[in-house]
Amino acid sequence: MIDTLEVAVDSGLLSPVRAGTSIEPVVGDRAWLQAMLDAEAALARAQARLGTLPVQAAAVITRTARAELFDLRGVAVASRDTANPVVALVAQLTRAVAELDPASAEYVHRGSTSQDILDTAAMTVAHRALTVIDDHLAAAVDALAGLALTHRDLPMAGRTLALHAAPTTFGLKAAGWHQLLCDARVRLCRVRDQGLPVSLGGAAGTLAGYLEYAALDGAAEPDPGYVDRLVAAFAEETGLSRPALPWHTLRTPLADLAAVLAFVTGALGKIAVDVLSLARSEVGEVAEPAASGRGASSAMPHKRNPVLATLIRSAALQVPPLAAGLAQALLSEDERSAGVWHAEWLLLRECLRLTGGAAEAAVTLTRGLVVRPERMAANLALTRGQLTSERVAARLTPVVGRDRIKEVLTRAAAEADATDRPLYDVLAETPELRGRYTAEELARIGDPAGYLGAAGTLVDGAVVARAEPARR
Amino acid sequence: MIDTLEVAVDSGLLSPVRAGTSIEPVVGDRAWLQAMLDAEAALARAQARLGTLPVQAAAVITRTARAELFDLRGVAVASRDTANPVVALVAQLTRAVAELDPASAEYVHRGSTSQDILDTAAMTVAHRALTVIDDHLAAAVDALAGLALTHRDLPMAGRTLALHAAPTTFGLKAAGWHQLLCDARVRLCRVRDQGLPVSLGGAAGTLAGYLEYAALDGAAEPDPGYVDRLVAAFAEETGLSRPALPWHTLRTPLADLAAVLAFVTGALGKIAVDVLSLARSEVGEVAEPAASGRGASSAMPHKRNPVLATLIRSAALQVPPLAAGLAQALLSEDERSAGVWHAEWLLLRECLRLTGGAAEAAVTLTRGLVVRPERMAANLALTRGQLTSERVAARLTPVVGRDRIKEVLTRAAAEADATDRPLYDVLAETPELRGRYTAEELARIGDPAGYLGAAGTLVDGAVVARAEPARR
Amino acid sequence: MIDTLEVAVDSGLLSPVRAGTSIEPVVGDRAWLQAMLDAEAALARAQARLGTLPVQAAAVITRTARAELFDLRGVAVASRDTANPVVALVAQLTRAVAELDPASAEYVHRGSTSQDILDTAAMTVAHRALTVIDDHLAAAVDALAGLALTHRDLPMAGRTLALHAAPTTFGLKAAGWHQLLCDARVRLCRVRDQGLPVSLGGAAGTLAGYLEYAALDGAAEPDPGYVDRLVAAFAEETGLSRPALPWHTLRTPLADLAAVLAFVTGALGKIAVDVLSLARSEVGEVAEPAASGRGASSAMPHKRNPVLATLIRSAALQVPPLAAGLAQALLSEDERSAGVWHAEWLLLRECLRLTGGAAEAAVTLTRGLVVRPERMAANLALTRGQLTSERVAARLTPVVGRDRIKEVLTRAAAEADATDRPLYDVLAETPELRGRYTAEELARIGDPAGYLGAAGTLVDGAVVARAEPARR
Amino acid sequence: MIDTLEVAVDSGLLSPVRAGTSIEPVVGDRAWLQAMLDAEAALARAQARLGTLPVQAAAVITRTARAELFDLRGVAVASRDTANPVVALVAQLTRAVAELDPASAEYVHRGSTSQDILDTAAMTVAHRALTVIDDHLAAAVDALAGLALTHRDLPMAGRTLALHAAPTTFGLKAAGWHQLLCDARVRLCRVRDQGLPVSLGGAAGTLAGYLEYAALDGAAEPDPGYVDRLVAAFAEETGLSRPALPWHTLRTPLADLAAVLAFVTGALGKIAVDVLSLARSEVGEVAEPAASGRGASSAMPHKRNPVLATLIRSAALQVPPLAAGLAQALLSEDERSAGVWHAEWLLLRECLRLTGGAAEAAVTLTRGLVVRPERMAANLALTRGQLTSERVAARLTPVVGRDRIKEVLTRAAAEADATDRPLYDVLAETPELRGRYTAEELARIGDPAGYLGAAGTLVDGAVVARAEPARR
Repeated sequence: MIDTLEVAVDSGLLSPVRAGTSIEPVVGDRAWLQAMLDAEAALARAQARLGTLPVQAAAVITRTARAELFDLRGVAVASRDTANPVVALVAQLTRAVAELDPASAEYVHRGSTSQDILDTAAMTVAHRALTVIDDHLAAAVDALAGLALTHRDLPMAGRTLALHAAPTTFGLKAAGWHQLLCDARVRLCRVRDQGLPVSLGGAAGTLAGYLEYAALDGAAEPDPGYVDRLVAAFAEETGLSRPALPWHTLRTPLADLAAVLAFVTGALGKIAVDVLSLARSEVGEVAEPAASGRGASSAMPHKRNPVLATLIRSAALQVPPLAAGLAQALLSEDERSAGVWHAEWLLLRECLRLTGGAAEAAVTLTRGLVVRPERMAANLALTRGQLTSERVAARLTPVVGRDRIKEVLTRAAAEADATDRPLYDVLAETPELRGRYTAEELARIGDPAGYLGAAGTLVDGAVVARAEPARR
Repeated sequence: MIDTLEVAVDSGLLSPVRAGTSIEPVVGDRAWLQAMLDAEAALARAQARLGTLPVQAAAVITRTARAELFDLRGVAVASRDTANPVVALVAQLTRAVAELDPASAEYVHRGSTSQDILDTAAMTVAHRALTVIDDHLAAAVDALAGLALTHRDLPMAGRTLALHAAPTTFGLKAAGWHQLLCDARVRLCRVRDQGLPVSLGGAAGTLAGYLEYAALDGAAEPDPGYVDRLVAAFAEETGLSRPALPWHTLRTPLADLAAVLAFVTGALGKIAVDVLSLARSEVGEVAEPAASGRGASSAMPHKRNPVLATLIRSAALQVPPLAAGLAQALLSEDERSAGVWHAEWLLLRECLRLTGGAAEAAVTLTRGLVVRPERMAANLALTRGQLTSERVAARLTPVVGRDRIKEVLTRAAAEADATDRPLYDVLAETPELRGRYTAEELARIGDPAGYLGAAGTLVDGAVVARAEPARR
Repeated sequence: MIDTLEVAVDSGLLSPVRAGTSIEPVVGDRAWLQAMLDAEAALARAQARLGTLPVQAAAVITRTARAELFDLRGVAVASRDTANPVVALVAQLTRAVAELDPASAEYVHRGSTSQDILDTAAMTVAHRALTVIDDHLAAAVDALAGLALTHRDLPMAGRTLALHAAPTTFGLKAAGWHQLLCDARVRLCRVRDQGLPVSLGGAAGTLAGYLEYAALDGAAEPDPGYVDRLVAAFAEETGLSRPALPWHTLRTPLADLAAVLAFVTGALGKIAVDVLSLARSEVGEVAEPAASGRGASSAMPHKRNPVLATLIRSAALQVPPLAAGLAQALLSEDERSAGVWHAEWLLLRECLRLTGGAAEAAVTLTRGLVVRPERMAANLALTRGQLTSERVAARLTPVVGRDRIKEVLTRAAAEADATDRPLYDVLAETPELRGRYTAEELARIGDPAGYLGAAGTLVDGAVVARAEPARR
Repeated sequence: MIDTLEVAVDSGLLSPVRAGTSIEPVVGDRAWLQAMLDAEAALARAQARLGTLPVQAAAVITRTARAELFDLRGVAVASRDTANPVVALVAQLTRAVAELDPASAEYVHRGSTSQDILDTAAMTVAHRALTVIDDHLAAAVDALAGLALTHRDLPMAGRTLALHAAPTTFGLKAAGWHQLLCDARVRLCRVRDQGLPVSLGGAAGTLAGYLEYAALDGAAEPDPGYVDRLVAAFAEETGLSRPALPWHTLRTPLADLAAVLAFVTGALGKIAVDVLSLARSEVGEVAEPAASGRGASSAMPHKRNPVLATLIRSAALQVPPLAAGLAQALLSEDERSAGVWHAEWLLLRECLRLTGGAAEAAVTLTRGLVVRPERMAANLALTRGQLTSERVAARLTPVVGRDRIKEVLTRAAAEADATDRPLYDVLAETPELRGRYTAEELARIGDPAGYLGAAGTLVDGAVVARAEPARR
């Protein structure tokens, strides 16, 4: 067994973004196995509550449904014969229950089908994982709100198509990141709180097996409301929501999970690509929080690599294609797909795990981000006036006309570039402006700190307005 | 020009799912051009409402902003120099306005930036397209509700992993399709009604240009609330919603659109794969609505191909990868991405167009679907009793025990297969059951029509409960 | 440690397609760790061969480079600080070498960089995995050649757009599967044999560090050919090929691997979807090989699910999106990407593992596929003549004209459908044919077994011509 | 008709990367229509060459097969009824032929099926488009070889994880780009020259229809070699290659096209992301070629946006997901898929078109790229010595030991950062080095221009070795 298990260890070696993070135990194989056992136990208790399964059996099943008692690898390997792990798990569970109480063994998986158990387990795992992820997002949202307010009026170069465009503030940039994570939380909480239902359909989605055994085990034929009550009881026992219909091949929950996990990593990834852009050696406007050993290079002693942004970006590149694979679940034919269903599990787990790791990295990153106002100031001055050419154009439009000013400025910018002089010196010497404006007056007009538009107001609105995003 | 245009014609030849459908004019190049012009005009009117642009100029701009006056191909080809079509469009618009009223030309695109116009236009096109799509979905939902109720109790074989599993009803299948489209409508309407904002940020997302020109053109420096009022006015003029922040690189709306369009086509695709499964020559339980010429083959006179399901499935295979491409928009660096933004437009348009075509095909398909109860009955009888082995197992469990009955049934099923006899005949002769049950009694237990579980109740609940899905 | 490892176990529970298969130990975390150690040892030996590193040190490093001596989980968790596992691994390796021989410790990772080691390890793992996969493919190709030749002339219905179209043979179908796997082998072997190079670039891709230490450790400044010889020696030691250039951000090998793994699973997936199509209860033309326990259902005793095809299809749905994620590697900026590189490892491993599992399943499936001529014959008769309407049209064209015959046949087919009569009976009564052909004569023309076209010749050509595919 | 066509115009407005480029007419709807007509004509001529179709008919069909005679939009809209455009096209072609020569009309599409025509047309379009693309790649390869040799020894900062790492040369960077495009050409030419076969299968892939009509039209029953000769003649007439088998659902050519187009745009995209990285305002090491109007901004007069890199990157983000969609083609069930086939056409065309546009942009970019040695020199000096800390570590290792020197350097680098002093000044004052090395001596060791490793040799090897890439 050691050898076999050894083979099967996934230590996170190939996935540093989540190695050792808090999401790992929540979505590991053990956790999935436990969630399947939880589903079996919850089902038994739900049936017991409705009087169609002995209370004693439900208790024994619940007591036995502990993952550490099971041969995880054995279940996994056996799953290859049946294309899913539930058949082997039910066999092991039945044996374990029988050892404790032979009479109860009969009631394991009563009326059920593999997909009910595995789908319910998947929803349970997803629910727990989304909660971990949302906690991280909430912490990052807090940190970003702090960054946005602290640096509300800190000017920096705005950059479009890789070039300096016009001034902005670091506060507004942080407010944008904050906004994206708030958007992510709204979407995540919506799915977590309303979109993760128990699965209860039986062999072909009609719940016929449950009804059959209810008639067999209960006092009488179940009344028409029995199915409703059973679903409700199962939902209560698992903490999941109630579906409108059995959803073996109506894969809305999977599509929703795929969309939201791609969104969360995309939102985190935006922060990462911005941090990487601002952390470049030549830009140097932000740096990742220093920590002993973090960011070390195997070859270059001087480097302190932006590893958190790197890890987050790595997740943001992996989750969307994995999620796209997951979203194929909607095209499930018949009452249970031969293969489409089976393609969901691994993809879902990796999406959850990578997202969790990325969100945890984002907390560290946003809490400790080093902001360098002096580098921002230096970069604002870099193009020697060109950064605010839009404003100068606006201000001089009444003087020289709209078409003319654009042409004058374009020409002056080219000459300033070519001769390596400040734009305003060149501009003040143009025939159109000579004698009308001095270079100093033009420089005052073009002062980046005076051309921040509504940045401050926007920060206030966005950070205050979204203080309670998850409640929306 | 003719030659150039000729080159550029996209007649739908390669995309039959949408050729000639009602979505085409809504998302074609002309429609996008008009939407950009609408954005320019709406911006001018919004500024005029706030007193920072002459009312006369707004009127002239609005009057001039008609796509048919513009050289579409010229704008397109020129866009290669600036990486977006707005620069060339603004030049044409300015010239056209100047011809009518030179004084107004100054006010075209006042304080604005290409991305504000193109993003707003994209949201406008998306809004119109989602409305077309939702109308189709609503019609299909109605048709499916009818199918579900009409065939509420029509038994058919439930199929899992390609094999007969247990009976279900066609009503329940139709109710599932109905449910998926209701889920789709909820998601679509949420995005359409709350998730498509105007874009207003100016050169670097601070709205500085708008403020600058407002000071220039208005009576005084704009007060702090000006930006808020400008966004509100622009939103009113366009019928779009108000964003929390300028979103040039906060691409939530694109991610939401990608997710919802992938969802809609996935939901439609589920119907298509089911119809194709049921329409197979050997199954024959449904057929597509007959129409002259539809489904004809170039080689085989006898064929009536399920072309509607084919077209829908073709869209369901194309939109998800296109949408995955679109969702990359979240990873937009800086204040405007060099390339990520530019990758959005084509993908968004194709997603909208394919989804619209598929939704329109679904209306025809669901309204006219031919259901064949006699084929369903024949197929229910196909496995000569095996379809309800789950029930027989349940019923005989008290008699022979749970483990025993499964083994007995598995053995009997194999023998029935091998000898080509009805399961119940074989079963009645097993040592465990001989003398206890006749083949006739067993056949009564195993009557598929008597083993439909909660199918009817589920149909009632789902179809009635979701009668008003879009309002949720 | 137990707890931590426990958390990290990936038992294959969520991936039955590969749980317990021969690919698992080849691509597991241990195997990757070993491959990294192999790369370090090979590098030391290569340097020693060129006289720029003590032979003794190379020997000690090689002796120490055994994965079982290392703390796998420790390396994985530490990798979060540096965004890759090599930094921590080098530290452990250096300590371990120092324990054996302090003087050799200096020479571990001499002049190297993390990416050289990890990329080389990835290529090593990929090489080993592709060999496993190709062995499976070769076995499946053999089995399919057998199927194609055995059933060379076995008629069955050809199906297009879900409907019976015209007759074909099972031999031709198997020859098609055979062809696809041959195509897959050609592509796989090309990548394996020519496309998996060692990585040797040093910190920024110039090999400066290697040269520097060579000067330090060797007798004299290395001559201009040193780098060439070092790459050649490293390639020899690892069994990999030589790159044209250091490829830290020239990710051709990853793109090639992504493409070929998507191709292999796609080719296997075609077999799977065909098997699922033919195995449907109503069709029943093939069945999966029976094996005790395989295909069992948790609810339905009678079922023998096509689990092999299901598992293969599940891989064919997962690998392409994973591979699409992997192919993003080409967009690696600068001399080492911050995040794009780090997104490769997990995706590559999963692609290899799923493909290996699917290929192994395909061997079992193709070797044991049960073919049912009697079901094929029954299905050929199902449409009572319509299947060969193309031929009847051809044969009667000279008699009644081309346009006329198509119309006659379409009408007759519709009537035959409506009245549930054989096509030829109806046809013989049409005004155009009455008195010219009897129903019997028409039935003879329309005999499916007589209308197999070039199927047999095609089988011969394809199976013989491709007998040695991997050598092409 | 005008209105309808107007609706259908695709002017390139949403796809500036290809608007107005030379790929557009090669892959537009007209070109596809012509390619389908070419296929019909080639088929007729092939049959005529083998004596199974009148030479006169082949001549009339060829003469009539001119796209400008056909109602493109009419064919497109009609295609919705049959799910592909061939049925309507054949009807139009038959009518047009009949007008010229009634006797020939009979022979249009003789024995054929829609997929044979459309697949062959797709291969023809792909062949023509790949040739256009390869011409662009060849031009870019030439330009890059020039850049690599011109700047063979121009030092610049190598950057890893966004930070300066160690020196490299611009020549080596250009050689890397050159290498990727050579890799792309090898893959592209392999597919173009060997991987694009004619499609000839008939209704169900057995060529039965062709044989049937050959018997009817020819002198006698066709001999066993007829099919082979027909395929060969069709291949000759179209200039495409010969397939091993009919490939209606063996979609190797589509998978190969998907892979190669994703590769080409990925390779081009690598150049684009590097150019964008180097063109950033703070870096400024390269600039795009200036051209009147190119790179203009609608808001900012000073900007000259890197639009070529932007457009290329936009294609590199769109093509891979489109190609992933296209690669799904392998999972085509049965003898013709209901929907998988139909999802290919649009995706293939867009992949070809975007790749063509990106390749054309790359020619302009690589031919005109402005390289700025003075900015490279300034950036090399930016970290004041840290860039070559790897070398300093190597050189001082014999003096202070390996572990010690790394620690000393890391400490000194941190202090240099904190105190904003050159690294060597700080280093010369450390206890370990004081009195042993002066700051000047250390600076000499750390001179970036002296630490370029094998960059020059690598450039020579790669650029010379690959001078004839397409021939490999």
